[in-house]
Amino acid sequence: MSHPIRQIAIIGAGAVGSYYGARLAEAGHDVHFLLRSDYDAVAANGLHIESVDGNINLDVPSISTNSADIGPVDWVICALKATSMHQAHDLLAPCIGDHTRILVLMNGLGIEEQFAIWFPSTPVFGGLAFTCINRGDPGQIHHIDYGPITLAHLGDNPDEIARALSLWDGAKVTVLTAPSLLAARWQKLCWNVPFNGLTVTAGGVTTDIVMHDPDLRAAAEELIRELVATGNADLATHGTSVRLDDAEVIDSMMTRTDDMAAYKPSTMIDFVEGREMEVAAIFEVPRRRAAELGVPTPLLTAITGQMRVLGARSQDI
Amino acid sequence: MSHPIRQIAIIGAGAVGSYYGARLAEAGHDVHFLLRSDYDAVAANGLHIESVDGNINLDVPSISTNSADIGPVDWVICALKATSMHQAHDLLAPCIGDHTRILVLMNGLGIEEQFAIWFPSTPVFGGLAFTCINRGDPGQIHHIDYGPITLAHLGDNPDEIARALSLWDGAKVTVLTAPSLLAARWQKLCWNVPFNGLTVTAGGVTTDIVMHDPDLRAAAEELIRELVATGNADLATHGTSVRLDDAEVIDSMMTRTDDMAAYKPSTMIDFVEGREMEVAAIFEVPRRRAAELGVPTPLLTAITGQMRVLGARSQDI
Repeated sequence: MSHPIRQIAIIGAGAVGSYYGARLAEAGHDVHFLLRSDYDAVAANGLHIESVDGNINLDVPSISTNSADIGPVDWVICALKATSMHQAHDLLAPCIGDHTRILVLMNGLGIEEQFAIWFPSTPVFGGLAFTCINRGDPGQIHHIDYGPITLAHLGDNPDEIARALSLWDGAKVTVLTAPSLLAARWQKLCWNVPFNGLTVTAGGVTTDIVMHDPDLRAAAEELIRELVATGNADLATHGTSVRLDDAEVIDSMMTRTDDMAAYKPSTMIDFVEGREMEVAAIFEVPRRRAAELGVPTPLLTAITGQMRVLGARSQDI
Repeated sequence: MSHPIRQIAIIGAGAVGSYYGARLAEAGHDVHFLLRSDYDAVAANGLHIESVDGNINLDVPSISTNSADIGPVDWVICALKATSMHQAHDLLAPCIGDHTRILVLMNGLGIEEQFAIWFPSTPVFGGLAFTCINRGDPGQIHHIDYGPITLAHLGDNPDEIARALSLWDGAKVTVLTAPSLLAARWQKLCWNVPFNGLTVTAGGVTTDIVMHDPDLRAAAEELIRELVATGNADLATHGTSVRLDDAEVIDSMMTRTDDMAAYKPSTMIDFVEGREMEVAAIFEVPRRRAAELGVPTPLLTAITGQMRVLGARSQDI
């Protein structure tokens, strides 16, 4: 390997964390996975990725149930579900040293900002994974489609972005960079809000059902319009010159989702399986931001209310 | 009784048909109930209304499983679920004579027009029941709150409206009249679309859950705004001078629904119990009308798609 070997901690080894961690391990890095419920299964059988871009079998991955056993690393990749943010500080803290950087692979708005508050001298990056990936049995990950990560730096420093990019040298992952983390986050919401939202509120259906219903398809496009308008107002408030173009974002999101066929977004799987959904990070925070900015978002408002009540109910069961 | 006794057929003796039929029977009219699944229970035990406005016990109501056994009557009151419209012609036809009038107590848009096409020489009326009423065991109806009917004539003929009004002389029902059936239908949709729709799409919840969630409450108001805009465009197209005022309609619908506490709209009960929902009559027809009229209705569009897919799925189960 021509690139330096990095110590990497994967905090939150669900589908996304396991997949990208395994790609970095495949590229020769020392990757340590923090596991909780899946520890015993992975200890016994390893971590196996079935991927359209080539399978990866880590028969004896470095795993641990406690971040303190991992200790300070070069890179912490945090891929927790947004609903576990209340545990994130304590899970990350033992892995943060003087030279650590944090890459956040999570859904939602305002997450990187929270890490920067907790760890003020640690550079924080956002990685937006556009990928169709699901968990199988413990230790089994199915990577179905796509896979690029878009990297951005909280602070939008080009030198830092270059440093984050170099981590992926030699890894079988297409890595793009974004000049504005905030713009990239809003762009990602332009997929998560319509498709995580509409697949759930239509009863727990796959993306093709949304795409084939003319009214739900129109609703997805209208949600993107509302999110682009809110995102652009948010970018203006932050003094960022980047702007999203709604026609372009709609075209990109709709085309990619048409190509996905019958995909199950993570929130839809959570809903169907009665697990807690990422309602705050994907819906409530953007909806609150729209209200603060005075941008009218009737559809985002409605679907946020639907998701909040659906989420509260599934938690009651 | 000072008023003439009328022969009345109740076609569709669910909660609404049974309740208003029983009130007319209580007032001395000859009321015949067409029953299907509940026939045996009602034959054995009678029809019993537990009502905030006074209970009614019809121990031996006139019931029948076949409209031909009832034959031509003065008034046919059709209170079928809108999903049974395909059976409506055959169920009503044997009861239609030269002097029959039809009063439609159903949800949705365009229903009276369909009866007028089937029975062109028969006057057709719409009755908009604003009431909280549920079925209990077969033959048991629970009338929880409200109860006024607003009567209108397809053709908006004041003499005909007066004739329909006189049917209710002496009945314990508050009867109002509306100068425009079309305006009254749109006004009724201003309750049914938001509250039947949002209670279902939020997972099958009662109206208070919608009213207490600020985002769902805002969505209900926005849906009313879209419906009023569409209704007014529809009224203009029909050359009707009546217009709805959105502030007034919102105030009226929200106040009444706040007062209802934890009510279960009929569509929400259908959803929770896995029965077919009135998606076409309440959602798809108004949504199509908005498209024809070029009125933007993003929220009505979204909820129509959600309801359509939820409805198709509940039918698959």
